[in-house]
Amino acid sequence: MTARLFSGKALALAMESDQKVRAEALPRNPALAVVLVGDDPASRVYVRNKVRACERTSVRSIEITLPYETTEETVLAEVARLNADPEVDGILVQLPLPEHVDASKVVSAIDPAKDVDGFHTTSAGSLLQGLPGFRPCTPAGVMEILKAAEIDPAGKQALVIGRSMIVGKPMALMLLDADATVTIAHSRTPNLPELCRQADIVVAAAGKADLVKAYMVKEGAVVIDVGTNRLPSGRLVGDVAPDVVDRASVMTPVPGGVGPMTIAMLIENTIRSAEGRLGKAH
Amino acid sequence: MTARLFSGKALALAMESDQKVRAEALPRNPALAVVLVGDDPASRVYVRNKVRACERTSVRSIEITLPYETTEETVLAEVARLNADPEVDGILVQLPLPEHVDASKVVSAIDPAKDVDGFHTTSAGSLLQGLPGFRPCTPAGVMEILKAAEIDPAGKQALVIGRSMIVGKPMALMLLDADATVTIAHSRTPNLPELCRQADIVVAAAGKADLVKAYMVKEGAVVIDVGTNRLPSGRLVGDVAPDVVDRASVMTPVPGGVGPMTIAMLIENTIRSAEGRLGKAH
Repeated sequence: MTARLFSGKALALAMESDQKVRAEALPRNPALAVVLVGDDPASRVYVRNKVRACERTSVRSIEITLPYETTEETVLAEVARLNADPEVDGILVQLPLPEHVDASKVVSAIDPAKDVDGFHTTSAGSLLQGLPGFRPCTPAGVMEILKAAEIDPAGKQALVIGRSMIVGKPMALMLLDADATVTIAHSRTPNLPELCRQADIVVAAAGKADLVKAYMVKEGAVVIDVGTNRLPSGRLVGDVAPDVVDRASVMTPVPGGVGPMTIAMLIENTIRSAEGRLGKAH
Repeated sequence: MTARLFSGKALALAMESDQKVRAEALPRNPALAVVLVGDDPASRVYVRNKVRACERTSVRSIEITLPYETTEETVLAEVARLNADPEVDGILVQLPLPEHVDASKVVSAIDPAKDVDGFHTTSAGSLLQGLPGFRPCTPAGVMEILKAAEIDPAGKQALVIGRSMIVGKPMALMLLDADATVTIAHSRTPNLPELCRQADIVVAAAGKADLVKAYMVKEGAVVIDVGTNRLPSGRLVGDVAPDVVDRASVMTPVPGGVGPMTIAMLIENTIRSAEGRLGKAH
């Protein structure tokens, strides 16, 4: 079997054209505030990518760039101002923050109703309890990929590799809500190959190049690669080895797979927030 | 192999004597407010059991019994009063509430710092994010049983059967935090026997009598029975069939297993809350 490579990039583009129509149909443009403290080059690139996605979808981006020396108090005051601003629908604080600013305190200060990253404790609790709220963008993007690829997790065996707060754990809960039987594996799992071979759906989010190899994958499985690992050569690769393409039925490439969908879901959350705020049900 | 039957009742009693000492060492007795609306007979029994556990551990119980007709507004006002009372360490609203009172609204109104049941969305989010907070009492009780039985979940394969908000999901996260590889199975899982046979630790919380049978259990597995099912005869049984005793290494009985530990953890949460409030680290 040769896997179909599912293009997250193409799906993100398709979503964007729908998002642009929805954004322009609202009484005012949805607005996403992006707070960047300091000038970490990687963070700058991430922020730029998000701002560009806003531009493509008629979402107003409000870039708030604060110098590295900014105090925690000032960052918190900025978040409070954005919470209070009725024209702001989403607030994203680009992580990491400088060491002298408590990131968890800053994220907790965001109004959960504007927490489009889905990192607030209230958003996490809502996910666990099945209540409405913003879901973290990366696992939400994976769910959109499965939907677009017409893969229904119900009754399937899913394996999530990795247990981070922003990917692994929420991913497991979202697959569980979709009626999959879910296993969460991690660095302390002794028998990953064995578990992997049983899975109909594998989501690799361990941050380890070539972790999932062909011999570990069940013939016809769906393999979603959330890894982004930079090789010494500078090349970006996922957690899934290239030869898995000969075993899987559907696979996502890196780059161009889950990555673009993460940003698409950030825009989606922002537009939904605006639709809710401006009285349009979604 | 014949399983050791682990008595949750004995462990709860041992914990209670320690709890009593800690409660009496504080500047004032820890206090648990129990709000009961209406006179559902089962709820009355549950409340009575909790009040008795308070009496045994020198925790002051404040029983607030409101008539069935009480409005949501009045229940919320009562919760607000208890939140504001510096002498109250824990607030428990006995569920179910009458239909005209929105239970989720009432639970959300409890100050997370007094949410000793661990049902608040903030408590759930703290669990997911690995932050401090009150954990739901039943899965917390299971973790105590494992600890007391000297079963370290790290590196083990755990199966949680059931995905409720108050047992299955938090149980899976707590076992994951203890470095187990965790699978969550549920009513839509097609191959439960197969999954069960692979597990070193099985937590059955499906609410289905005799769901876990001997042939499904790996020789030497630890089997924790969270089920409480009332048979037509009136007898109370768990989710685990009696013949599992011949396969498991450790097993919890029903009644007398997880049940008493749920109440012990409620008392534990209340005392920890008081210790925190009264400036004693735990």
